[in-house]
Amino acid sequence: LPKKHSGSDNTIFSEMTALAQKQEAVNLSQGFPDYEIDDRLKKLLCEAAEKNFNQYAPMSGNPLLIENLIEFNNKRTIPISVSKENITISPGATYGIYTALASVISFGDEVIVLEPNYDSYVPAIEMNGGKPIFVSLNDDFKVNFEALKKAITEKTKAIIINSPHNPSGKIWKKEDFNQLSDLVENTEIIIISDEVYDILTYDQNEFYSAFHHPKLRERCFSIFSFGKMFHITGWKVGYVLASPELSQAYRRVHQYLAFSVNALAQYALAKYLEVFEPKENQKIMQQKRDFFLNEIQDLPFTLNEKAEAGYFQILSFKNISELSDKDFAVWLTEKAKVATIPVSAFYHDQKSTGNVRFCFAKKEETILKAVENLRRYL
Amino acid sequence: LPKKHSGSDNTIFSEMTALAQKQEAVNLSQGFPDYEIDDRLKKLLCEAAEKNFNQYAPMSGNPLLIENLIEFNNKRTIPISVSKENITISPGATYGIYTALASVISFGDEVIVLEPNYDSYVPAIEMNGGKPIFVSLNDDFKVNFEALKKAITEKTKAIIINSPHNPSGKIWKKEDFNQLSDLVENTEIIIISDEVYDILTYDQNEFYSAFHHPKLRERCFSIFSFGKMFHITGWKVGYVLASPELSQAYRRVHQYLAFSVNALAQYALAKYLEVFEPKENQKIMQQKRDFFLNEIQDLPFTLNEKAEAGYFQILSFKNISELSDKDFAVWLTEKAKVATIPVSAFYHDQKSTGNVRFCFAKKEETILKAVENLRRYL
Ligand SMILES: CSCCC(=O)C(=O)O
Ligand SMILES: CSCCC(=O)C(=O)O
Repeated sequence: LPKKHSGSDNTIFSEMTALAQKQEAVNLSQGFPDYEIDDRLKKLLCEAAEKNFNQYAPMSGNPLLIENLIEFNNKRTIPISVSKENITISPGATYGIYTALASVISFGDEVIVLEPNYDSYVPAIEMNGGKPIFVSLNDDFKVNFEALKKAITEKTKAIIINSPHNPSGKIWKKEDFNQLSDLVENTEIIIISDEVYDILTYDQNEFYSAFHHPKLRERCFSIFSFGKMFHITGWKVGYVLASPELSQAYRRVHQYLAFSVNALAQYALAKYLEVFEPKENQKIMQQKRDFFLNEIQDLPFTLNEKAEAGYFQILSFKNISELSDKDFAVWLTEKAKVATIPVSAFYHDQKSTGNVRFCFAKKEETILKAVENLRRYL
Repeated sequence: LPKKHSGSDNTIFSEMTALAQKQEAVNLSQGFPDYEIDDRLKKLLCEAAEKNFNQYAPMSGNPLLIENLIEFNNKRTIPISVSKENITISPGATYGIYTALASVISFGDEVIVLEPNYDSYVPAIEMNGGKPIFVSLNDDFKVNFEALKKAITEKTKAIIINSPHNPSGKIWKKEDFNQLSDLVENTEIIIISDEVYDILTYDQNEFYSAFHHPKLRERCFSIFSFGKMFHITGWKVGYVLASPELSQAYRRVHQYLAFSVNALAQYALAKYLEVFEPKENQKIMQQKRDFFLNEIQDLPFTLNEKAEAGYFQILSFKNISELSDKDFAVWLTEKAKVATIPVSAFYHDQKSTGNVRFCFAKKEETILKAVENLRRYL
């Protein structure tokens, strides 16, 4: 059988979650909430079954969901103006990223990836016959535009970007998008922008989408996740914004890959968008980040920078151990009974970074238990 | 942008359903039921939300669903013995077929397709860098093993088969699987077997899976659909049986493509399997087929053979019109207000066949309305 990609046989997220379960450790590794979801969402899902949304949804998505997404995007702090030609519903954001790549890559094309990066990007590029080209982010996880410029060749088909960034929580500023736009101006390069933590930005940080940018929006796919937005990672529904031309290319692949997305979830999500207050979820998550940061203050980890957004906080363990980050993460799970993600898992050479990633999208009780466990061992 | 496949820009199923809606025609085109689903399924879906199956399911599937599928397969009229290494849950069967292909094809590989065939096969092969090789079924939709043998070359990586067959409803007999097994015996050829209508077999017809065959099961993917099994096409959940080695290859792709499947639906399906009686759904559907066949008796269509299984009946319109089947199907939708699928859509050259496909997975009332409309015009 062919080796279709260079990715791990078992994602680091599945691996650490399985280890956490085996070790009965508090699981701050894989990014999923452990708290109750909004009751209204549950009710709407039942309503969907009652109202018989049990047969195929249209290929590009439930029309009401698309309509309500147009409005939702228009009501963002910084509005994104879109129409139905720009929106396709996807069975999760990971699928959205894969399918965006599948719709533009030809065999041998280069796709630039900014490291550290989410672990599905490289396999998705390779499975579609593309070649990943790696450019490192700076130590503060900002883009090195000089290095990015140097990596562009005639074969560059696309650049994958990610803001808010996983694992660092770093946000692209407007100025970053301007620089990217200048860089690709006279090329045909397509931007694939993973923006699944869009509404979860903290402090004074604003979310900018590649789709906000008047020039980039003609050449980008922006990929979003209801799972991350509404704390329902198990629902596996996301959406993809793209120009009409790119949306058409995306749908040409999608209609023969998954064809359509769970119709019950789509109905519930459509209705929920009518009552949903993004600011509330933002506030809940900022409180969780702050609670976590406050609790771990007296632990010997080093905080280099607070997460600006998202589910995760990177901490350095250089004062604690000289183990590789993978070994440290395993040790921490087995001994201190707290599971994290070693940041090396986000680099193609998996070289140790001295950092681990904590997921703070958890109940206070879970965070307290984790900190208690850590305190006992560190 | 690259042309990723030779498939239609808009599947024939979306096209005819849209035309049916526009023309306010009775929609017997796309294969989905229009009747109420089992109330217990609705209740179980609500229960899943209540019980908080709102976060990521494991990559290969909900453990209870897998356990209950092991039992379900063991309780078939002809048992299929499987363990959890053989089962992966998929976001629909179309995705299952794509992902099976993605996990075995290398650039340039040939994949044999038996025509007429479901419209996603060829795009799925091509999107993965493969080359479809077409072999025609006989006029009675039985396999021409001589022709199949001739089509096999050193480059043949896989053969896609489909039983019960869409659009004809034809079933592969045990003897057919023996012939296939003999044909591939000393090769590395992989069988991808679309078996989404497995439990819907009529009269004395038995369902055989490629996975029943002791030799084929080591080299095949059998793909199943809860959508078709439980009349819930909108749920978009299926499952894939494969040897441990092929399952592993499949999961290597799946974990970076969709990663996992809607967790709520998986819980509901798991629990439903505990009460589900396949014979009931089989009986309901056979009654629908018989009702349809009885009602259309006096219409000028020609019935060459009753569907042995599945959702569909092919009828010849040669006594009615000399139009191409596509034009006839459009005409029938616009004038007689009944939408069907032209059978040419299942052939790569789209040459007219003189046949259209009717979906009888509908309420009696819907079938009566369709027949009334047809009677008025024909
Ligand atoms: C698909 S499992 C990974 C979830 C996630 O986004 C993360 O932990 O980074
Ligand atoms: C995915 S839409 C097609 C449904 C179907 O199986 C058919 O009509 O043949």
